[in-house]
Amino acid sequence: MTKPPPRIVRTVADLRNVAGEWKGQSLRSTLVPTMGALHKGHLEIVRMAKTLAERTIVSIFVNPTQFNNPNDLANYPRTLDADWRMLEEAGVDLLFAPRQHEMYPEDFTTKITVSKVSEGLCGAFRPGHFEGVATVVAKLFNQSQANFAVLGEKDYQQLHVVRRMTRDLDIPIEIVAHPTVREPDGLAMSSRNARLTPQERQLAPELARQLNIAAAAFGRGTPAQDIYQVAHKAILAAGFSSVEYFELRAERDLMPLQSLSEPARLLVAANLGRVRLIDNVPVSE
Amino acid sequence: MTKPPPRIVRTVADLRNVAGEWKGQSLRSTLVPTMGALHKGHLEIVRMAKTLAERTIVSIFVNPTQFNNPNDLANYPRTLDADWRMLEEAGVDLLFAPRQHEMYPEDFTTKITVSKVSEGLCGAFRPGHFEGVATVVAKLFNQSQANFAVLGEKDYQQLHVVRRMTRDLDIPIEIVAHPTVREPDGLAMSSRNARLTPQERQLAPELARQLNIAAAAFGRGTPAQDIYQVAHKAILAAGFSSVEYFELRAERDLMPLQSLSEPARLLVAANLGRVRLIDNVPVSE
Repeated sequence: MTKPPPRIVRTVADLRNVAGEWKGQSLRSTLVPTMGALHKGHLEIVRMAKTLAERTIVSIFVNPTQFNNPNDLANYPRTLDADWRMLEEAGVDLLFAPRQHEMYPEDFTTKITVSKVSEGLCGAFRPGHFEGVATVVAKLFNQSQANFAVLGEKDYQQLHVVRRMTRDLDIPIEIVAHPTVREPDGLAMSSRNARLTPQERQLAPELARQLNIAAAAFGRGTPAQDIYQVAHKAILAAGFSSVEYFELRAERDLMPLQSLSEPARLLVAANLGRVRLIDNVPVSE
Repeated sequence: MTKPPPRIVRTVADLRNVAGEWKGQSLRSTLVPTMGALHKGHLEIVRMAKTLAERTIVSIFVNPTQFNNPNDLANYPRTLDADWRMLEEAGVDLLFAPRQHEMYPEDFTTKITVSKVSEGLCGAFRPGHFEGVATVVAKLFNQSQANFAVLGEKDYQQLHVVRRMTRDLDIPIEIVAHPTVREPDGLAMSSRNARLTPQERQLAPELARQLNIAAAAFGRGTPAQDIYQVAHKAILAAGFSSVEYFELRAERDLMPLQSLSEPARLLVAANLGRVRLIDNVPVSE
């Protein structure tokens, strides 16, 4: 049986109508929040979403409040038509693509702040970013009333911020993490990869390679400072213009670690040309 | 038919079980969030709540994060047994009385800030108060998944903060306001009234009296500064130790007004002995 193409709704009222119909039929739903410019990584997340509940919603909204840099917002790729076709093929049930005034009426004045887990890492380099993320995700969760949400581990700190916000505010949704999807050469899939020049694209996988080298070194007990020094040098030598952070953090609560005393993540952000790339890998003994 | 006594639950999991049962039976519910120390004003609110939906939940939680003053928190009246009996008589279905660690686990780090409507008035004198209110109310709404919530107009700025937060975060609950319930002598009912000495209790109605005098003067077109000056003097002369604010604000968005250019509220906060009292009245031409 061929699935009908996904319905597209642009208002919260329409989204709620569909969600209400589903609840009336005891159908559960999974939300996949995205900023569009969909790639294979998103499709893997959608595939997981479909295994969790009877209905799948994908939201596409380039959220202005999480961009600390106006150029980044202006240059963020927008490909709604292509996105729609991909979601149709993927068998998604509903596409929610609200316009900005639908999400943020003129007198919008509410902000959600998640301290601790949002500090350091991207939080240190993107002031206000995680407040924007937490606020828009709370809205999407409440608007969709989905039972599950799937988020990618590529944005690992974001995953922690969203998990904490959801638990702290008791939003009745279960967050499921999807492992980072990678290109054959190891580069973490990201909508921002589309903005790399062909030459930069060649260099980009060095980030994941250095994460893996460093993770292995942590596993062998090499001192953190030695590992960081080697990694920074190698990333810059590969052609990146700067390394924002390269850090070991606890899987559990994202608190900084000096050594591999508990299950951990190694996280990096670095700039390649005009593009800021992030990545992370799990680290265990 | 005698109604069974209200069930009391102390955990979010138990609250969700009951709420889930009701949803399964297509029964809607109304939440009345309180800090306990219930009085006749609360019972009027409960009475309204019962007209809105088939089930009524009253929450009792003295929320520490909304107390900027530790003495005020320590001295806030706590009368859970008496509250329970009152709610039983009032025919409430469920009493939710969570303990502090249930609401705020040790690694709780999320805060909701509502700017503009939370500025000035009580917001100026109680730093952090409305962040505490917005955060705990969002939690209670999400925990109970009630269809309606009834809030008293006595805490008029709080009503605006909660309305704005609920709309901005798209929490699927309808907020209904209940007019301030007053003692025969005009004093707005408040749990804090119990802390007044007999002599202070005699003086307290002067606050409502001055609000009404000032509201009438605004209706006649008397200049705001003249009205404020007379009111301040009269309240202090009556025995209050200080007037924190006495201000005209727009009903619509709580923005400051210099004159009666649109439907408005006149709001006051003043200290009588060790007790801080607030009140407000509608003002129209």
